[in-house]
Parts: sequence; C-alpha cells; structure tokens
Amino acid sequence: MKTYLDCIPCFMQQALRAGRMVTSDEKKLKEILDRTGEMVKTISMQATPAETGTMVYQIVSEVTGVADPYKSIKQQHIKETASIYPELEKIVANSDDRLLTAIRIAIAGNIIDLGVLKEFDIVTDVKNILEQEFAILDYDAFKKQLKETKSILYIGDNAGESVFDKILIKELKKPVKFVVRSIPIINDVTYEDAMASGLNEVSELVDSGCKSPGIILNQATPEFLELFNSSGLVISKGQGNFEGLSDCNRQVFFLLKAKCHIISNHLGVKEGSIILKEHTY
Amino acid sequence: MKTYLDCIPCFMQQALRAGRMVTSDEKKLKEILDRTGEMVKTISMQATPAETGTMVYQIVSEVTGVADPYKSIKQQHIKETASIYPELEKIVANSDDRLLTAIRIAIAGNIIDLGVLKEFDIVTDVKNILEQEFAILDYDAFKKQLKETKSILYIGDNAGESVFDKILIKELKKPVKFVVRSIPIINDVTYEDAMASGLNEVSELVDSGCKSPGIILNQATPEFLELFNSSGLVISKGQGNFEGLSDCNRQVFFLLKAKCHIISNHLGVKEGSIILKEHTY
Repeated sequence: MKTYLDCIPCFMQQALRAGRMVTSDEKKLKEILDRTGEMVKTISMQATPAETGTMVYQIVSEVTGVADPYKSIKQQHIKETASIYPELEKIVANSDDRLLTAIRIAIAGNIIDLGVLKEFDIVTDVKNILEQEFAILDYDAFKKQLKETKSILYIGDNAGESVFDKILIKELKKPVKFVVRSIPIINDVTYEDAMASGLNEVSELVDSGCKSPGIILNQATPEFLELFNSSGLVISKGQGNFEGLSDCNRQVFFLLKAKCHIISNHLGVKEGSIILKEHTY
Repeated sequence: MKTYLDCIPCFMQQALRAGRMVTSDEKKLKEILDRTGEMVKTISMQATPAETGTMVYQIVSEVTGVADPYKSIKQQHIKETASIYPELEKIVANSDDRLLTAIRIAIAGNIIDLGVLKEFDIVTDVKNILEQEFAILDYDAFKKQLKETKSILYIGDNAGESVFDKILIKELKKPVKFVVRSIPIINDVTYEDAMASGLNEVSELVDSGCKSPGIILNQATPEFLELFNSSGLVISKGQGNFEGLSDCNRQVFFLLKAKCHIISNHLGVKEGSIILKEHTY
C-alpha cells in the first residue's frame, strides 16, 4: 500500500506524540516538528506509510537522544495484557469455535497501537471485539490453509498485542515462527518484548531484519525472505505489516483492526472494522 | 494567544483541505504539503495561529494559482444562512430576552468555519446552540457596556456567519462599524461578503487592513487602530480574532464557539462550548 496524502499530516501528529513520550521541552518538540516538516518533501508517495514512519521516529530519537521512547509503556502493556490472559484462555476453552475466538482475541490485541491516533482501553475493547461482526472474514480459506500447512509464519505487530497472539498460536496447533522487528520502533514487538510475552514458549522467534513499523520486504534479511516464501501459511498482524504486504506475490492472511480512515477506505470497510482477509496474488 | 505545538499538524491538515477545494491533482497537493512542511521551521511560537495560517493559505494560492479557493462555498453559505434568516428573526422577536437570543444566533453562525477541521450542518447546529448553555457568559458586563457606549466596533469572522451577525447588530440598537478582512482568506468575511450578507444595511463596513484569518493589531491600518482604541464597545467574533486580541490592552467581548481542543484548553472550557467572554486588561 502506498502513502496517501492524508498520511502526511498524521506523520506530524505522530512525531509530536512520540516526542512527548520522552520530553516536555517545547524547543525540542518544535525541533522534531521542524525536521519532520522538512522531511515531507523527501517522502515518496510510492513508499508505504511504515517506511516514512521509520524516518519520523528516527527524528524523534535523534532530537531527544532516546532510542526507545516507548520502552516503559510497552512493558506496561505486556503486564496489563498478561493479567487478563488466563481469563481469555478460559473464554477460548468455553467457546463453540475455539479457533475463531482465538482469532478475535488476537485482533483485539491489535488495538494496542501507539502509532495510531486513537485512545484505547484494553479490557473494554477486548470485550467489544469479542462481540463485533467481522467486516471481512475469509475463515474457510484460512481453515483450509491451516489444515494443509506444515509451517506457519506469524508476523507480529505490537508489544502487548503479542500476549494475545500467544493465545491464537496455541490454537493453531502447528509449528509457528513468530516474526519480530529488528529494533525498537514505536511500540512494535521486538525480540525482547516477544520473550516477555512468553511467545518463546509456543513459537520460534525470528528477526525479520526490518527496522520500520511494518514489514518492508526489500529491507528484510535473505533468511526471512526464504521463510516468507516457503511457509505454508503466513499470518500478518496489524496495519503496518498490511501496508508492506498488501501487494506481495504470495498468499497472506491479514488479521487487523482498521484503525484509521485511510486503511479503512483502502480496504473498503468502515473505520474500526475487524478483518481476517485472504490476500491472493 | 500564541501558537501551540498542536497547531502545527493542524496547519498541514488545513493546507491539504484548502488545496483539495481547488484541485484533485495529487502532485500539486503534495507540493502544497512539501512547502507547508518546509514552512514549519519558520513558524514563530510567539505568533498567533492566524498569522501562520496566512502563510499556509498563501502557499495553497501560489501552488494552485487560485487566489480565493473558498469563493463559491462562501456564496453558498451566505445563501443558505439568508434562507433561514427570517425564521431566526421571528425566534428573536418571540424570545423573552431578545438580546441574548440574538447573541446565541450570532455565535451559532460561528460554526461556519472552514479553517477548523469539523463538519457542520447550519440548520441543525443553530437549533442546538439555541438550547446550549454558555460555558462563559459575561452578560451583565456586556449589557452594562452596551448601555453606556455610543459606538460599537464589531469584528466579523466568517462569510455566512455574517448573515447571523446582522441579527445581533440590529438588536444592539447603537451605531455599529462592522470590520471585514482586507483580502479573501479561508472563508473569512470580506467587504464583498458583508455586502452580500446585507450588513451594509445595518452597519458601516470597515476594512481592518489585515490579510490574515484573524485580527493582528500590528498589521492593521492606523485608521482601524484608532477605531479599535476609541470605540466604547468592541465585539470580536470567532477563534481567529480571539487569537489576535486575547492579550490586547483594552476591553473586548469575545463571542465564539470553541471549536478545537487548543482554544478550549486555553479558555478552560470543554470543546464545543459557546462563550460570551469579557476580556479586561
């Protein structure tokens, strides 16, 4: 997915918000906005928003001197999601369709996204999503592919959400490789966050080589690309990964909540929709 | 009122929206965003948002070659407000407090603001504002000043809103000078719009000399400053004029709807509040 013009003012808002995570110094925050503003003319509209997002968060880190502004909030989200994990496991165990319920929970985790300008409340939002109708639900295709596959590549999105991914991964009942970001970027899930989420207990952790808030295939390692191409089932979580994979040359199942009007319009669904979408090529 | 950091992403949104009023050419729209982005570093945080707004709308005009992107929509708003004018006059005539009802109607007109990122519906919003409680209502001070004054300076805001200003001006029952912008800027009321709104029938039209979407005293003509200082009562409509006059050295009565969270926080009221506020010095 390419960058839309409406993404550009959003980058400015994201820059300000990320800056405020680490400083209240108005001069530094203005410098972040100045540099993000200057960066606008270098944005390629053919790049994905996640690629440009990388530049925005680099500016924040450079100006504030803080490499990982979201470190403590990521830990807090992992703690918060872990505290309701047992309750969610029970909901899965007692449901008529365990797999679909686990998918819902994994999508519910996708609300924990600090790159999107929305407030969220984990407990309330999870409850709502458990009741919400899917706007796109390619469930039969998903089940078919799951049944046939021997190997699953599960591309993670945010820290905290990662705890709910564990619930789905357990329900998949196949060997899973869970893909993390190479470096801290926004609140995206890194190796350290995946370990803290207990994902190492249910999957093998894999570093994609990507330093952006979403998979960008031409930045990924050859090892990752090999896995990406050879896995029987690829599950991609969230908007950032969708942006990078929406035009790729293999089947992918996208699990996400459409959290901004750009993504929703692109998908032809209402903002706030939940989606399990099969991408074919 | 100075510029807040949160105004800066909003300038980018305004640039894009104003650009889209005249063109759907993605390259031109990107150029508008590029130039607005580059302009960010020149923004003085001591300037009012209206001063920076001027630069934003200049960029839009330069890139698109259209000096007045809002011309036709201003005409449409004047037509729309004029069509409900007789009904509003009846509401004033039948109300217990004619002056306060006319003030409410004048504030209701303030929803017609294309510099703010809110949708509005004139008829619905007017009805709601007629029922809405004031968040700040310095009505006694206003009535006292109105009783004592011999001359009123009424600083207009938007075209369309100007039709509702006529209702209030008639209720003031004193000589009124109505202040217009020097040039078309956003949908602000110019001499031409004031004439089309029939304001010449109830007041003398005065050009402030300001080319920004809000009064900036150091850009105003000496004639305007003389009027501003010598008038017994000054009424200032809307956010843009509030930004320029909130720290000025004379009494001013601000009539506005607080339409963005920056202005509301500055005033200590909820977003969407309606206000008749006496500024003392």
